[in-house]
Amino acid sequence: MEFASDNTAPVPAAVLETLARANAGFAPGYGADDWTRAVQAAVREAFEAPAAAVYLVGTGTAANALALACHCPPWGAVFCHRHAHVEEDECGAPEFFTGGAKLVHVPGEHGRMTPAALEAAISATGRLGVHGVQPGMVSLTNVTEAGTVYPPAEIAALAQVAKARGLPVHLDGARFANALVATGASPAEMTWKAGVDVISFGGTKNGLMGVEAVVLFDPARAWEFELRRKRGGHLFSKHRYLAAQMAAWLEGGLWLDLAARANAAAARLAAGIAAVPGAALVHPAEANMVFAALPRAAHRRLQAAGAHYYLWPAGESLEGPDDAPARCRLVCSWCTGAADVDRFLAPLREMAAAG
Amino acid sequence: MEFASDNTAPVPAAVLETLARANAGFAPGYGADDWTRAVQAAVREAFEAPAAAVYLVGTGTAANALALACHCPPWGAVFCHRHAHVEEDECGAPEFFTGGAKLVHVPGEHGRMTPAALEAAISATGRLGVHGVQPGMVSLTNVTEAGTVYPPAEIAALAQVAKARGLPVHLDGARFANALVATGASPAEMTWKAGVDVISFGGTKNGLMGVEAVVLFDPARAWEFELRRKRGGHLFSKHRYLAAQMAAWLEGGLWLDLAARANAAAARLAAGIAAVPGAALVHPAEANMVFAALPRAAHRRLQAAGAHYYLWPAGESLEGPDDAPARCRLVCSWCTGAADVDRFLAPLREMAAAG
Amino acid sequence: MEFASDNTAPVPAAVLETLARANAGFAPGYGADDWTRAVQAAVREAFEAPAAAVYLVGTGTAANALALACHCPPWGAVFCHRHAHVEEDECGAPEFFTGGAKLVHVPGEHGRMTPAALEAAISATGRLGVHGVQPGMVSLTNVTEAGTVYPPAEIAALAQVAKARGLPVHLDGARFANALVATGASPAEMTWKAGVDVISFGGTKNGLMGVEAVVLFDPARAWEFELRRKRGGHLFSKHRYLAAQMAAWLEGGLWLDLAARANAAAARLAAGIAAVPGAALVHPAEANMVFAALPRAAHRRLQAAGAHYYLWPAGESLEGPDDAPARCRLVCSWCTGAADVDRFLAPLREMAAAG
Amino acid sequence: MEFASDNTAPVPAAVLETLARANAGFAPGYGADDWTRAVQAAVREAFEAPAAAVYLVGTGTAANALALACHCPPWGAVFCHRHAHVEEDECGAPEFFTGGAKLVHVPGEHGRMTPAALEAAISATGRLGVHGVQPGMVSLTNVTEAGTVYPPAEIAALAQVAKARGLPVHLDGARFANALVATGASPAEMTWKAGVDVISFGGTKNGLMGVEAVVLFDPARAWEFELRRKRGGHLFSKHRYLAAQMAAWLEGGLWLDLAARANAAAARLAAGIAAVPGAALVHPAEANMVFAALPRAAHRRLQAAGAHYYLWPAGESLEGPDDAPARCRLVCSWCTGAADVDRFLAPLREMAAAG
Repeated sequence: MEFASDNTAPVPAAVLETLARANAGFAPGYGADDWTRAVQAAVREAFEAPAAAVYLVGTGTAANALALACHCPPWGAVFCHRHAHVEEDECGAPEFFTGGAKLVHVPGEHGRMTPAALEAAISATGRLGVHGVQPGMVSLTNVTEAGTVYPPAEIAALAQVAKARGLPVHLDGARFANALVATGASPAEMTWKAGVDVISFGGTKNGLMGVEAVVLFDPARAWEFELRRKRGGHLFSKHRYLAAQMAAWLEGGLWLDLAARANAAAARLAAGIAAVPGAALVHPAEANMVFAALPRAAHRRLQAAGAHYYLWPAGESLEGPDDAPARCRLVCSWCTGAADVDRFLAPLREMAAAG
Repeated sequence: MEFASDNTAPVPAAVLETLARANAGFAPGYGADDWTRAVQAAVREAFEAPAAAVYLVGTGTAANALALACHCPPWGAVFCHRHAHVEEDECGAPEFFTGGAKLVHVPGEHGRMTPAALEAAISATGRLGVHGVQPGMVSLTNVTEAGTVYPPAEIAALAQVAKARGLPVHLDGARFANALVATGASPAEMTWKAGVDVISFGGTKNGLMGVEAVVLFDPARAWEFELRRKRGGHLFSKHRYLAAQMAAWLEGGLWLDLAARANAAAARLAAGIAAVPGAALVHPAEANMVFAALPRAAHRRLQAAGAHYYLWPAGESLEGPDDAPARCRLVCSWCTGAADVDRFLAPLREMAAAG
Repeated sequence: MEFASDNTAPVPAAVLETLARANAGFAPGYGADDWTRAVQAAVREAFEAPAAAVYLVGTGTAANALALACHCPPWGAVFCHRHAHVEEDECGAPEFFTGGAKLVHVPGEHGRMTPAALEAAISATGRLGVHGVQPGMVSLTNVTEAGTVYPPAEIAALAQVAKARGLPVHLDGARFANALVATGASPAEMTWKAGVDVISFGGTKNGLMGVEAVVLFDPARAWEFELRRKRGGHLFSKHRYLAAQMAAWLEGGLWLDLAARANAAAARLAAGIAAVPGAALVHPAEANMVFAALPRAAHRRLQAAGAHYYLWPAGESLEGPDDAPARCRLVCSWCTGAADVDRFLAPLREMAAAG
Repeated sequence: MEFASDNTAPVPAAVLETLARANAGFAPGYGADDWTRAVQAAVREAFEAPAAAVYLVGTGTAANALALACHCPPWGAVFCHRHAHVEEDECGAPEFFTGGAKLVHVPGEHGRMTPAALEAAISATGRLGVHGVQPGMVSLTNVTEAGTVYPPAEIAALAQVAKARGLPVHLDGARFANALVATGASPAEMTWKAGVDVISFGGTKNGLMGVEAVVLFDPARAWEFELRRKRGGHLFSKHRYLAAQMAAWLEGGLWLDLAARANAAAARLAAGIAAVPGAALVHPAEANMVFAALPRAAHRRLQAAGAHYYLWPAGESLEGPDDAPARCRLVCSWCTGAADVDRFLAPLREMAAAG
C-alpha cells in the first residue's frame, strides 16, 4: 500500500531494456550522441515545436531552477502559487540559480492561481520603481501541488496576463503527463499554444530513474541555458543514459499510458474515499494525487495495516481524538493498481460499516 | 510643506562644522583614523556595549544587507514583516548579499509582528527538512514601516521566540533614535538587553548626509563583516568623513534632540488630523510618521498648496470622488517645525469648517 | 579506435544487472532507501572511514563544486593547478556554488603543484588584509589533468602546507581509482591519512553511467552539504538508481579492476609511442591518459584510419608541415584492450618503418 | 611626509563650501534633486557624451563592480592585468557583483596589458566551448597600478582587440584625472573615442570625500545599472551630498588642477630619486605614483624621519642588509607640495653625499 510519492515506484521494463541497448559500444559525451539527438527530435515532435531547444537534466529542481534563471534577472520577481514546488520544496534553488530573485506568492484555491490574483500581484510589484524587485516572470505548476489541473484555457488566461506585461511563462511539468491525460489536451495545447515559453517536462515522477527535459520554445536563450546547465553541474557527460530512458518512455506513447494508469488509480481512490462517511476530499482529485481528510482513527488503522503516505501539509499530526479528521496526501504511480487502491479502502469501509 | 520623507531634509550645522574640522591634514584610510576610532567608542558607549564591533557604511540598505548576510546562510529564511524595508524597498539586496536567502513574511497589524505569528512562521518553515529553506534569523524594524514603535518588552518577546530556536535577531534601526525618543528606552534596553544581536543604527534619516553604523553586539562575526563590507564595495577609504558626521551627531545627544523634534512635529500633525472630521489615522502615529486617510478633495487642496508627501501605499491614487478617502504617508524630519505642521493642517481645517 | 575520453565508454554488465535488481518494488526517495545506505557503508569501508559522511551526485562538476562550497567562503581563494578541472572545465561552477570565490593558480610541471609553489601562493594571497580575498582551501586533482599521479607522500606534503595555514584540502578524484592502481595506495592512504578533508570520488569516468560520491571525512559539514546539494538541484529523488550503480562497481573490487585495465592499456600505448621515432610523450603517462606529440602526418594518418582523440591543449591544430609535431591527448578506458592499442600504434610504426 | 596614498589627503575648501551650499533647504531623494541633475550634465559635457548615463556611488570598488556586473555575465571572463585593482584589491567584489565571473590575467610590463597578450588570453578562453567560461569583457586601469599611463592610442589598440570579439571595454579610472593630465588627452579621447564603453570616473583619490561617477556611454544598460546599484546598497538617498562634491570639483577644471599638482609632485620626486646613487625607479613614474627601490638603510632613515609610505608589493620587508634595496610605493596627492618632496629627498641626498 504505497501512496507516499510517485518517486517511490520502480521504472517500467522498457526503460531498463533501452538502457541496455544504449550501452552498446562507445558514444560521444555531453549530448553529442545519437540517443540524445533522437530524443530531442522526439520531444520536439511530441510538442509540435520543431524549433524548440530541448535539454536533459537529472532532477526536477534542476530543470525548474535553470529554466527560471534563464528567464528572470536577479532583481526579478517570479510569480507563483504559495505552495508551488519552486517555493516550498527546492530549498531555495530558484533563488540560488537566479542570483537572488524573489518568489512572490499569488493566492488561489486548490493550488491554482487566478488571472485576477496574478494581475494584482504583478501590479503591486511593479509600483515600487527602483526600490523594489521588478516583475520578472510567471511560473505555473501543472498538475498543481494540490493535485488539481489547469486546462489549457486557464493556462492561456494566466499567460495572457503575463504577456500583457511582457513576462515570460514557465510551466513546472513534473507531472505534465498526468495533466495531459486528465484534460485530454495535447502537449502543444498545454504549452506554447497557450503562451508557455519554457517547460520543465518531467519524466522522473512518471516512470523514469531521473530524467527531466527542459523545452525552450523560443531557442534564443538556448546557449545561455547550456552555460547555466554546465555551470550548475547538470551537464551529464554520458548523456546517452539519460536520453535512452526518455526515448523508451516516449516510444509508442508509453509515458501517457503510465500517467493514465496513475490517474485511473487516483480516481478510484478518490471516489472510494468520498463515499466513506466521515472522510472527505480536501482538493478535487483531478490527476494522480488525492488529498483527503480522514478521522485519526482511520489513519491509525491504515498505518497499522502498512499503508505508506504522508500526513499533509507538513505539521499535520495524528495527535488528537479518534474522530477528528487529519489531512493526508495519497499519490498514485504508474504501478498502483485497482487492487492496491481497494486494499487501502478496505479498512475505511470496514470502519464505516462498523459505524 | 515638506512631508515626503525624512531624507529630504538638510543636515544640522554641527555636521558640516565637524566635517570641516575632520578635514584638517592627512589621515589614514579605511577606518584606521582617529575619528573612526572615536566614533566607534562613542557608539559602544551609547549602547553600553564595550565589546561590540562597530562599522560605518553609507546607506541603510548596505547596513541591513550586510547585517543579514553575516547572520543568515544562503539557504536560510529571514523572518520579517510583510512591509519591512528589507522586503519591500531594497530591490532584493538581502537576497543578493546573503546569496539567495528567502524572506518569509510574518503577519501583524500596524507593521508589528506578534510573537505568536513569528512562532508560527518559524515552525512552518522548519518542517520541510532538506526540501525547504531553514529558519535563519529574525529581522525587526523599529520604528516600523507603519510608523509604530515596539517597546523593549515587545522586542524581548519576539527575540525570545527567536532565541528558543537559536536564531539571531537583527534590528533595522533606520529610525532608531525616533523609537528611543518615543519609548524613553535606552539604546541598550532596546537592543542587546532585549535580545538583539545586531542593529543597523541609522543616521541618514535623522540628520546625517549618509552614515549608518552596524553594531554587532557579539563581535564573533566582526571579521566576516569586514570582508563582506569590502567585497560589497562599502568600505570607504576616507573613513573620517563618515566618522566625523556621526561624531557630531552623537555629541551631546544631538541625535536624540533631532529625533525628538521630528516626533513632536508628527504628534502635533497626527493630533491635528485626528481632530478634522472626515480625516483619520491609518496607523497609530507613535514616532515621526503619520499615516492618514484624507478625502481626495483635501489631497487636491493640499497639493495645490504645495504640500509634498506620498499617497501610500504605492498604488493609492487620487482618482475618485472628492469625499472618498485616499491614504497617505506624512513624514516629519528634525527640521519640521510646529509652523510647518500648522500650515499643512490649515487647509484641512478650513475645509472642515466650510463643511 | 576510441581514445577521446573515458566518458565515451559503456558501463560493465554488472552495473546494468544491479540496476535491474534495484528496480524491484517500491523504495523510499531522497536517499532513505536500503541501496543508498548500503553503498554509503561500502564507501566508508573502502576508505576505512567509519564516521565519514557519504553523498551521491550525478556529475563530477557537482561533486567538486559542492565540496568546494562547503569548505570555502565566498571571499576565499581556492588554490589549485592552472589546469585543474575546477579551473578550466567547469564553466565557473566553483565560483557559482561558492558565491564568488577566486581560484588562484599554483604552478607546477606536469599538472602537479609543488609544496613550495603552494606555500608561495598562499603567502601572497594572505598579505592583502581586508582588501584581498582570503586563503580559503586547497584543491588537488589525482590523477592530474596531465595524466600524472601524486603518490600519498606528495599529497601529504601539500596538505601539510595547507594545514599549517588552517586550510582544508579537497581532492578531485574523478580518476581516483586510476590513481590508486597507479600507486598501489589504499583509499585511506591517498586521502584522510595524507590530510585530505573531502574527496570527489569519481565513478563516471571509470565505468558508471553518472555517479560520483562526495566523502567528507569530518562530518561536521554534512548537513550543510545536504542543503547545498538540494539547493543545487543535485538531490536525486530516486536515489536507489545512483546507489545501485556504485554498489555494483564497489562489489568485489570491480572498480579497481576497471581502472587497472585502463591503466594497463595506457601504459602499453605510452610505451609504444615512446618507441616510435619522431613521437614523444609530453607528460609522464602514469595512469590512463597519454599526452603525446606526434608529427602532423601521423595525426592525419590516424584520423583517416578512424582514430578518435583530441588534439590537446585546446587550440592545438593540424595546420602546419607534415613533420612538425602536434600534441594530443589519448585516454584509455576500462574497455580499451591491448588490440585497440596496437591498432592505434600500427600506422605510427608503419610510418616510422617507411622512414 | 605623507606618501602612503592619495586617500589620506584632505579635500579642497571648495568641496566643503559647496556641500554647505547644497545643504540649504529640502531636496528630493535618490538623485531626483537639482544638484544631481547638474553634475550629470557636467560629466556628460566633460566627456562630450550627451547621451551617456551618469551615476554616482561612494566608492571605487562599487563603481568597478557595478560596471563589470552590467557588462559581463556570471559565466564570463573579465580580462585584466594581473595587478589590476579589480583583481587584487577588492576582496572579490567583481566576482560577487557579477555572480561569479572569472578574472583572467593578461600579462604586461609595468602594469600595462599589450594587445597581443590580450588577444592571446581571449583566444585561449574562447576555445573551451561550454566547458569553460566565455570571453566576457575587458577591464583596463588608467593610471595603472604601476603608476604608468596608457595614452589614448594604446587604449584604442586594446579596445580594438576587444571589439573584434564583441567584448565591451571598462576603464577603471580611479586616477583618471591624473592620466588625462599626464597625456594631455581629453576625457572623450581617453574613453569612448578610443572604444571604452564604461568608465569608473574617480573623484575620491583626487580630492573628494568619497564620490565616483560611473559613465555608461551607451545608455542601453542604464536601468540595469540603477537596479544593480540599489540592490548593491549603493543608491544614496541624500544624493545631493555626493553630487555637490563632484560639482565643486568639476567647476572651473579644479579636478584637473588637483591632478596636475599631484603629478608634478610625483615627477619631482621621481627625478630626485633617480638622481640618487643606489636608488632606482621600478616603473616609469608617469602620473602621481612613484615606485622605487631604495637601500634598506634609506628606508630606515626615512621612516625614522617620519615618512609614511608602503613597502611594495605586499610582502616586501625591511629585513636584510643595509645596502640591499627594498621596493616601495610613494603616492603624491593634490596637496603634496615641492617642499614635501624635497623633505623626503633630503635624507636620501645626505646619505648619498655621505657616501
